[in-house]
Amino acid sequence: MKRAVNIGIIGFGRVGTGVIKILRSHSHLIERKIGTRLNIKRVCDLDIRSDRGIKIRKSVLTTRWGEVVNDPDIDIVIELIGGTDSARRVVLSAIKKGKHIVTANKALLSKYWGEIFSFATEQNVLIYFEASVGGGIPVIQALNEGLAANKITRILGILNGTTNYILTRMTHQGLSLREALQDARAAGFSEANPRLDIEGEDAVHKLAILSSIAFATHVPLDKIHCEGIRDIMVEDIQMAREEFGYIIKLLSIMKVYKSEIELRVHPTLIPAEHLLTSVNDENNAVYITGDAVGKTMFYGKGAGQMSAASAVVSDIIYLARNVFHGIAGTFPYVLYEKNKELKFRSIEDILTKYYIRFTTVDRPGVLAQISGVLGKNDVSIAAVYQKGHALSREVPIVMITHQAREGNLRHALKEIDRFPVVKKKSVFIRIEESA
Amino acid sequence: MKRAVNIGIIGFGRVGTGVIKILRSHSHLIERKIGTRLNIKRVCDLDIRSDRGIKIRKSVLTTRWGEVVNDPDIDIVIELIGGTDSARRVVLSAIKKGKHIVTANKALLSKYWGEIFSFATEQNVLIYFEASVGGGIPVIQALNEGLAANKITRILGILNGTTNYILTRMTHQGLSLREALQDARAAGFSEANPRLDIEGEDAVHKLAILSSIAFATHVPLDKIHCEGIRDIMVEDIQMAREEFGYIIKLLSIMKVYKSEIELRVHPTLIPAEHLLTSVNDENNAVYITGDAVGKTMFYGKGAGQMSAASAVVSDIIYLARNVFHGIAGTFPYVLYEKNKELKFRSIEDILTKYYIRFTTVDRPGVLAQISGVLGKNDVSIAAVYQKGHALSREVPIVMITHQAREGNLRHALKEIDRFPVVKKKSVFIRIEESA
Repeated sequence: MKRAVNIGIIGFGRVGTGVIKILRSHSHLIERKIGTRLNIKRVCDLDIRSDRGIKIRKSVLTTRWGEVVNDPDIDIVIELIGGTDSARRVVLSAIKKGKHIVTANKALLSKYWGEIFSFATEQNVLIYFEASVGGGIPVIQALNEGLAANKITRILGILNGTTNYILTRMTHQGLSLREALQDARAAGFSEANPRLDIEGEDAVHKLAILSSIAFATHVPLDKIHCEGIRDIMVEDIQMAREEFGYIIKLLSIMKVYKSEIELRVHPTLIPAEHLLTSVNDENNAVYITGDAVGKTMFYGKGAGQMSAASAVVSDIIYLARNVFHGIAGTFPYVLYEKNKELKFRSIEDILTKYYIRFTTVDRPGVLAQISGVLGKNDVSIAAVYQKGHALSREVPIVMITHQAREGNLRHALKEIDRFPVVKKKSVFIRIEESA
Repeated sequence: MKRAVNIGIIGFGRVGTGVIKILRSHSHLIERKIGTRLNIKRVCDLDIRSDRGIKIRKSVLTTRWGEVVNDPDIDIVIELIGGTDSARRVVLSAIKKGKHIVTANKALLSKYWGEIFSFATEQNVLIYFEASVGGGIPVIQALNEGLAANKITRILGILNGTTNYILTRMTHQGLSLREALQDARAAGFSEANPRLDIEGEDAVHKLAILSSIAFATHVPLDKIHCEGIRDIMVEDIQMAREEFGYIIKLLSIMKVYKSEIELRVHPTLIPAEHLLTSVNDENNAVYITGDAVGKTMFYGKGAGQMSAASAVVSDIIYLARNVFHGIAGTFPYVLYEKNKELKFRSIEDILTKYYIRFTTVDRPGVLAQISGVLGKNDVSIAAVYQKGHALSREVPIVMITHQAREGNLRHALKEIDRFPVVKKKSVFIRIEESA
């Protein structure tokens, strides 16, 4: 009889449960693909009592991850606990024991990329992590293998399902951020730690992973400019949409210039006819541009139990097949070069268009004053919208600029915000028109 | 010194030239990915005199493919000649000699899937064919590996760049089919044999390949209902768009039912808000739905020299790395089961909505007569558009139906077209509203 491939799952939460469900319901299909049977040898979680709707033999369950990592029969360890501290210990211990790894942990990988992939290469083990970006969309494999012939010149994507769900609700139902967040929670699209979503950190982790693959080295998290959606106001969403035809999305952006790389995550306005404006709710989509292939785009559910489980199980199938044939770890999955120098463009130096909202008193000459300062700083205005409120003391002046250097814009806004006629801190949102 | 991996390219046309361009301009990047140098040992074409804008040593060029296939130093054969006869001989001979294959040849693979993949498995060689569907979009790999955990339940795509270019021109510039085809040719988007595009055959080949992967067996071409775009009229494109908000696309559709599979390629109307309506010009896009992952979508250039070359070179990199490490062919790339029984739904039995245009005399009672026959055949009407032409003898009556069985619709139309008041053969176009 053929030897089965043994796996151990660490983290029996929603995704872990989804993984076991697929492995069971599709066992026949999966066995044919691997060439042998897949055996779930151990399942580890601090909580092994709660009912997840699936039956697991008691002897399989454990609360101690060491029992999984140290089990000599286990070929592949599936790390699904999330977070960076315990997960790092689990993954490094498993690598040390020569286990191949499947993980969905974007926080872990983006932080410890170099350490983890160096050690894996040293130990001839493979680390697969398709579920870490884009849920079930096979975008990691596409970038790493399917587009391998290309120099990657641009990445532009909606990489966080929760914030996309929230912004969709705010845009199309006019909900406030708080209401939309409650909605997202009720729909099951929120990380244990909502800060990761709302503050943009999760999108930064994912952009760091994609960029680290694209440049074959670790792109550190602090090189990615990050702004979340916490300060986005419904009035700006609506004004940008109704007056200028822009839709708001939390975009993760990577652009390659001659000698610099630009990396940023922030709420971004995109023209209504742009394909990404059709990407709603918890869906993710990412454009990847290569110098040969041109623009490609990958779309699918970015959050949810079964889409993540789909990616994890596809990784397991691939690894198990290689384990069964005795060739897993012959060479690493991703290329990692340790001392590669990358130069990053600071946020002050980016060139883009902006939506700006000033809150001023309704008095003649205010617009001239503001545009004077903008002009002096090389920020030129493409469109203005000003609605007079006869009864109101504060009126919004909204503008779309032409491309401008962000440092110049910030400098201008600092000066403008000191004017006595300006009643609130001016708000700006970056605009992205290409894919 | 490390041993280089040797490749032989058969077919030095546009894609072949693109492949050599990438291999040269990105040689450093590619060498790092493979682990060793890649050497273009032979390049074969009947025409080795024309200037393709790249320099190749004379000793590399040959007009006889046997010199490539029989060269014991060559590890990987790149088949880019297209067509099914010579290409089949080339590929089978190369497999016999133990060469791994990269091919972009959808006509060949879709016709001889079983023969080619059985023989390759027997000989322990790999066949990679990413460029055969979707140009540079890595959709073959996604379906075969990235979504391996799923039962594939639906495929819906724009798989032919040329017809999409033509339909885009007809829809947005109001060109006739003939004018749009000339435009496509001028832009370089037309196969040597335009019939393959216009008649829908190329899209059928691609759907057969995707389905053969999804079902792990050969899906024969004659199981796919095929209608091209030859009979599509600008007036229907415009009527459907202006009166009912539908956009026309040549869709390739695969749907899985409990015990049957439905496969069809035909011009299809989709609602204007559907993501696929934003897929214009030579771009391709394909939705793949899996039972775990849900809907995923892959988008990019489906035609053009460099996008196809991107896929071919990515395949070469993958194979060369495996060759260099001595593990290529340990197990096959795609799963192929010989005697798998699939049951196909006939086109008569499909259930869908329809756009129908009748050409009748402008006389009271005609509409009642037509709807009577439709009703009798269980075809119910969702919307009607009728414009009176005071001075014209022939007026169009345009309808959108609810879901109906196609056999019933056809039966009704046969009866209606015999009415003396009906002046021309009635036209119908299928509608697809989901992804």
